[in-house]
Amino acid sequence: MSTAVSPLAPSDVPAMPVIAGVRLATAAAGIRYKGRTDVLLAVMDEGATVAGVFTRSKCPSAPVEWCRARLKGGKARALVVNSGNANAFTGKTGKQSTALTAQIAAKAVGCAASDVFLASTGVIGEPLDASKFDGVLAALAETATPDHWMDAAKAIMTTDTFPKVATATAKLGKATVTISGMAKGAGMIMPDMATMLSFIFTDAPLSAAALQSLLKTGVEDTFNAVTIDGDTSTSDTLLAFATGAAAAHGAPRISRASDPRLKAFAKAFQGVLADLSEQVARDGEGARKLVEVIVEGATTKTSARKIAMSIANSPLVKTAIAGEDANWGRVVMAVGKAGEPANRDKLSISFNGIRVAKSGARDPSYNENEVSEAMKAPKIQIKVALGLGKGRDRVLTCDLTKEYVAINGDYRS
Amino acid sequence: MSTAVSPLAPSDVPAMPVIAGVRLATAAAGIRYKGRTDVLLAVMDEGATVAGVFTRSKCPSAPVEWCRARLKGGKARALVVNSGNANAFTGKTGKQSTALTAQIAAKAVGCAASDVFLASTGVIGEPLDASKFDGVLAALAETATPDHWMDAAKAIMTTDTFPKVATATAKLGKATVTISGMAKGAGMIMPDMATMLSFIFTDAPLSAAALQSLLKTGVEDTFNAVTIDGDTSTSDTLLAFATGAAAAHGAPRISRASDPRLKAFAKAFQGVLADLSEQVARDGEGARKLVEVIVEGATTKTSARKIAMSIANSPLVKTAIAGEDANWGRVVMAVGKAGEPANRDKLSISFNGIRVAKSGARDPSYNENEVSEAMKAPKIQIKVALGLGKGRDRVLTCDLTKEYVAINGDYRS
Repeated sequence: MSTAVSPLAPSDVPAMPVIAGVRLATAAAGIRYKGRTDVLLAVMDEGATVAGVFTRSKCPSAPVEWCRARLKGGKARALVVNSGNANAFTGKTGKQSTALTAQIAAKAVGCAASDVFLASTGVIGEPLDASKFDGVLAALAETATPDHWMDAAKAIMTTDTFPKVATATAKLGKATVTISGMAKGAGMIMPDMATMLSFIFTDAPLSAAALQSLLKTGVEDTFNAVTIDGDTSTSDTLLAFATGAAAAHGAPRISRASDPRLKAFAKAFQGVLADLSEQVARDGEGARKLVEVIVEGATTKTSARKIAMSIANSPLVKTAIAGEDANWGRVVMAVGKAGEPANRDKLSISFNGIRVAKSGARDPSYNENEVSEAMKAPKIQIKVALGLGKGRDRVLTCDLTKEYVAINGDYRS
Repeated sequence: MSTAVSPLAPSDVPAMPVIAGVRLATAAAGIRYKGRTDVLLAVMDEGATVAGVFTRSKCPSAPVEWCRARLKGGKARALVVNSGNANAFTGKTGKQSTALTAQIAAKAVGCAASDVFLASTGVIGEPLDASKFDGVLAALAETATPDHWMDAAKAIMTTDTFPKVATATAKLGKATVTISGMAKGAGMIMPDMATMLSFIFTDAPLSAAALQSLLKTGVEDTFNAVTIDGDTSTSDTLLAFATGAAAAHGAPRISRASDPRLKAFAKAFQGVLADLSEQVARDGEGARKLVEVIVEGATTKTSARKIAMSIANSPLVKTAIAGEDANWGRVVMAVGKAGEPANRDKLSISFNGIRVAKSGARDPSYNENEVSEAMKAPKIQIKVALGLGKGRDRVLTCDLTKEYVAINGDYRS
């Protein structure tokens, strides 16, 4: 199993600032891995609000069901994340396990179990022994401190090749507030794992409703516009927590997402989501190329999204990119199979700005050597112009390499 | 590039009988390949009917558009198939090329151009020089004979590793009629090719309407239930020709597919479609395992099909099969992402008859060694029981191996 960091890892890792009202701690509970941390506890001061979006899988994990049910309250005091075991497809045991974990965390933090949020990532179908958290979470609650962000991002990794963090600040009223987040992606080296987890924290004083609205809008063009292999996890979880601590230095309390004072914050929040979701694409299993698919001139944005996803999920397009081949014939194929309005004879396609096809045929002016050279870049942009309307969308993915097959097929789980 | 025959190739190749009213001939026209045949001409006696089904791609190839437009007439005198160039995404040139090919064939055979059917497979986006057929088709029309079925099946291959033929007989009235077919599949070694072509011939006297109806019904559970990588070609073409020659020895003329005398024929016809489509799955790119996905207990057959396709197209499921891993967690994932009704806690999953999960959790009684042994077989059956209704469906696919990535990514087109 390769432990090399993805060549697409960002070269600059930000210094992660403190978020007032949030304390973090990690531990090695021995859930599956040896010699590394696998539990994260985040403790929020009283008054923190929470919002979340989850997998659309019809077979969600037990922690996803737990969080969905607790979200209505809009309040959060603790987040417990473990790696190594997804607690998915574990039947009644799985449900009991989430209840026990929340109970242990509630006791450790001194809150109601319903204010505890949970996420698990790792093997599907293995019962998660929640008793392993006993003692561990109490110790973590005592030692939790406002820093440790990189440690936290590392504890939630499964086989990601690098920890994923992002941070931004924004003016809210006259106060400066901070937004920090972490994510784990689809760096699968050990089979059975296919989960995306992300957690965002801010000291801004936002109501749960405002936070939820920002989150729902925000994921549309970020996390929902990233695909590695078209396989949707049972455990995808994105939770956002707002401690409200910035109210102490003058940030106004915001109850609705439509509040005009939220404009700068919303932009910064969106930036953190975009940054983290791009890092997920950059750490796709076996990825050697980051691929940006832009579809424009579609009848609607929804139609553009479907066509972009059809291209981004096509194994033939993805293997061509891996082979540094500007194989626009396969892009045509993927446009055609999407089932969305498209007129073959109006189609134009370019790779990294070099147009290779126009008006439904090969662009007679393109230079094969020039495009071959361009395909060697670590980031490839495929742009498709449909020439039908104003619908535009953008999706991020990565190439499909032999390493992907090796990661997911060579080893028995 | 590997030229080894797929380990999943059928061990028995049938002796292909003559179909009265059909003559075949092949030639090397040098369209792309060197040292092999790349053109097939099939000549039908006057009176032959034709039916066809085509790719649902919104960007179909020029020959697909040609055939669709000619199908209304219901009559066919000639079929011209070339390999090496798909004549897809070739703009006006492509359209002119189909017209010229049909014109050359019509002159050679002595029929109207509108009675000529065309199919092309190979590179997308390269203009097809139809003048290469000049002379070639006239010579083929002269030398065409009723045998040569294996030669015909070979001429239409691109990088298939074996020719695909099937044949059956059935009673129609008191006469015995014959159905023979050939197909080319998705054995892609040279990039840019992704086409499925199949041609079925019979001496039964069927109206074009009856034949079309049989074909439409027949593909539903055969060719439409096979997936290699979820990528739909621009050129998929399945044409059926009925010469009616069996009327001379007493076969009744059939005008409607609902005619009760057609029962045995319909079954045999379906058998030929099933045989050919299974061979396409057996020759999937880089395939080492034939995978049969059965979904039962769904709310409807349509729902079962969607779930079966979600499993069969999941790269994570397919790489697990390649790794001989009974990774039912990934099957759960694929069921969950299909978006169809499913109740996690009623789900059962088995691999080659060994149940590994039941009632939404690991089956406590399954033996890991036993299932590991079973996964070494060249044919893997994944059966998912949803426990919701009576909807059932079956889909064939193959595993996803490093060879697939090598075939499609390692070489520049």
